Amino acid sequence: MSEEKENIQFELTDALIAQVGKLIEEKNDRELRKLLNGFHYADIAEILDEVNLDQAIYVIKLLDSEKTSEVLMELDEDNREKVLKNLSAKEIAEEIEELDTDDAADIIAELSEERQREVIFHIEDEEHKAEITELLGYAEDTAGSLMAKELVKVYETWTVAGCLRRIRGQAKDVTRVHSIYVVDKQDRLIGRLSLKDLIVAKSDEKIADIYIKNVDYVKVDEDVEEVAKIMAKYDLEAIPVVNDEMTLLGRITIDDIVDVLKEEADKDYQLAAGITGDVEADDSIWELTKARLPWLLIGMFGGIGAASIISGFSDAMLKFPALLMFVPLIQATAGNVGVQSSAIVVQGLANDSLDGNLFNRLLKESLLGLVNGIAIAAIVLLISHFAFHTTYHESLTICVALIAVIIMAALIGTFMPIFLDKRGIDAAVATGPFITTSNDVFGILMYFVIAKIILGF
Amino acid sequence: MSEEKENIQFELTDALIAQVGKLIEEKNDRELRKLLNGFHYADIAEILDEVNLDQAIYVIKLLDSEKTSEVLMELDEDNREKVLKNLSAKEIAEEIEELDTDDAADIIAELSEERQREVIFHIEDEEHKAEITELLGYAEDTAGSLMAKELVKVYETWTVAGCLRRIRGQAKDVTRVHSIYVVDKQDRLIGRLSLKDLIVAKSDEKIADIYIKNVDYVKVDEDVEEVAKIMAKYDLEAIPVVNDEMTLLGRITIDDIVDVLKEEADKDYQLAAGITGDVEADDSIWELTKARLPWLLIGMFGGIGAASIISGFSDAMLKFPALLMFVPLIQATAGNVGVQSSAIVVQGLANDSLDGNLFNRLLKESLLGLVNGIAIAAIVLLISHFAFHTTYHESLTICVALIAVIIMAALIGTFMPIFLDKRGIDAAVATGPFITTSNDVFGILMYFVIAKIILGF
Repeated sequence: MSEEKENIQFELTDALIAQVGKLIEEKNDRELRKLLNGFHYADIAEILDEVNLDQAIYVIKLLDSEKTSEVLMELDEDNREKVLKNLSAKEIAEEIEELDTDDAADIIAELSEERQREVIFHIEDEEHKAEITELLGYAEDTAGSLMAKELVKVYETWTVAGCLRRIRGQAKDVTRVHSIYVVDKQDRLIGRLSLKDLIVAKSDEKIADIYIKNVDYVKVDEDVEEVAKIMAKYDLEAIPVVNDEMTLLGRITIDDIVDVLKEEADKDYQLAAGITGDVEADDSIWELTKARLPWLLIGMFGGIGAASIISGFSDAMLKFPALLMFVPLIQATAGNVGVQSSAIVVQGLANDSLDGNLFNRLLKESLLGLVNGIAIAAIVLLISHFAFHTTYHESLTICVALIAVIIMAALIGTFMPIFLDKRGIDAAVATGPFITTSNDVFGILMYFVIAKIILGF
Repeated sequence: MSEEKENIQFELTDALIAQVGKLIEEKNDRELRKLLNGFHYADIAEILDEVNLDQAIYVIKLLDSEKTSEVLMELDEDNREKVLKNLSAKEIAEEIEELDTDDAADIIAELSEERQREVIFHIEDEEHKAEITELLGYAEDTAGSLMAKELVKVYETWTVAGCLRRIRGQAKDVTRVHSIYVVDKQDRLIGRLSLKDLIVAKSDEKIADIYIKNVDYVKVDEDVEEVAKIMAKYDLEAIPVVNDEMTLLGRITIDDIVDVLKEEADKDYQLAAGITGDVEADDSIWELTKARLPWLLIGMFGGIGAASIISGFSDAMLKFPALLMFVPLIQATAGNVGVQSSAIVVQGLANDSLDGNLFNRLLKESLLGLVNGIAIAAIVLLISHFAFHTTYHESLTICVALIAVIIMAALIGTFMPIFLDKRGIDAAVATGPFITTSNDVFGILMYFVIAKIILGF
């Protein structure tokens, strides 16, 4: 009953990486095995992410697939892709045999279709093969794609004692038993039990008499983000997955949801910063450019738009040169307010905490904009008057424009994500360069229109 | 063995809220109880977040504290504060009796010091009282503040059968049994067991012979973010908490970590958008202003700085009016690039995935800036020449400045979060208005300096 040694005090040091590298160079397999088997698989993955590809493959081939299969799962995605390219279909199949069905399907899904077929062909355990093939059939980002087939299932007609005896067999294949699912003769989910309930119950009791009838579940085609919300809201650690006939198909555990939540948060954060495609700091310049340049181009066209507006008012420019000095202020304020407003709405949409109707929300943002606008305008009035010696009308123009632009930016920032969300587009794209750029352009246009009205050019 | 009914198909409709409101008006307690007891506590909390304060308090007082204590936990923080203000210390103590120690301590911690003493005084269960008082003593954001005292603990000298018999008693108080912690005579953590291991083992075996010696744990003063990282990395669903002498003090479960991760992600997202203080769309205008205005002021001072720079070059402005048209383009590009670069670094720092030295990272960002800069400059060159009829030197100025500003913005965006992180400041503040503003100012300054060199004014 021993498991891999878990060493929480693990620290990835240069010395350790050098030591591993040296043992590989020397082909000192005995020492290498001894050293690495002392680490948790997540730690080995961290080491392999640091050494070069040949060394990583050497280690993967050296250690038992019981360990390396989990290491593969924890490797950085790019590195895993490279390692898998250097393993034969049979070698991958051996790793796959050791993994739970959900992890196995995830790894296979990363391969080309031809390789997928080859790897599946080499899986020896027929049940495992069938289950993985089933999982590969579910669409990405659905509950089906996230679930595992491993679960503990009992029939309502069993007794507690019979149940304990039988689940001993099932439980060996299941890493962690969260809930025991109770099904009827047709394998339809009808309730649940915890191991605790089973241990606390008398051994001659019938499952039918002790199981909990109300069980949370999700449909196999449910969106993973929705699954995450349900599990977080109801504090669930596992949730069963069923089809439309309520047949029990699999279960999703909270550790997968933690990963979904982290990925989701990272993606939203990047979108808000104008980066698409889930890149990391260590990706290639080409990948980073693909993720970043499109958003910069949006900003560029905004800048060109702003140039056109200024060019259209070029006569006034010569008469009131002070106006142009404050363009950056107008632009920065519009951008900042827009991002603030949209971020709050995007978050509200993500947490389902946005209630009340659109009109009230826009009204509130306008009021908020008015308060912030007056505060900022008051300070700018003093500074522009005393430091830049603007005329009374110029100062008035700048202050009125600031307030108007702040209100406009708040309204666009609020409206845009709600509008996108209603159209079924991820509202997160609305925060960042997209909203900044539109607010820049509208803000500068508004500034000059207000100037035209007040200064009368 | 029944638990609260969990209805996954729950939907918060206006009709439902109206129905609840009507039943409260009519003081139809029987129907109201029947209706609400059919819902999960998380759903009742959603309903109470929608009705008015008096109605919410009415419901809290009506239902059993077994249910309402959990409802209180799930309420929106602002609403909980209001509800608690309207309950007597004795009433709060009754709710507290029903909660696990970690939740109980969280609620009490939200009260004023005087109320805290009153509530604790009214808790009847002496053990519960002592445990909650202990938890209140741990500093915020440490493992101690997050842990619960409820856990299942066995001594290494017990047999499997004796163990099962005894943990039946302990397990009744523990909502979910993740792991059974094995301790020595001095209550020092020496290993763990899962319920599954216990069920699979023979009943006359000694715990000492079957327990798993390597157990993950965290120290009671460990930072919660670090705890979250450890649990996510090692896919743990619960982790024991110990003091320096390895005495077992409590355990932290993954559902609390899910909350920590969500809060952390929300906070970082808001910081990146220039919002502090964890506000929500439904907070008051005053609270939202406090969270947003300071960041707008940073942007404002940046705008004033830009105005000073332009004012300093006002002679050149008159000679080369086309230059000023492109200020918004320079500014927007600098801002966007800075936010992109800093977001990637902030994320890398948060995930510990940032390796390599600072110089290499800055070199890479410079190269990336060069690639993006040349792409954008090429497009702007064409547009400025054909649409705005800029002279050769003006076009050259704009393009060189664009490339230089992009590289500069990428460098500042990369350097700033690393610098802040090294100083122990949350790097997330570096993304958003802070970085945009500094890049605006430096970008515009650089633009005019380059113009001065090329155009020689």
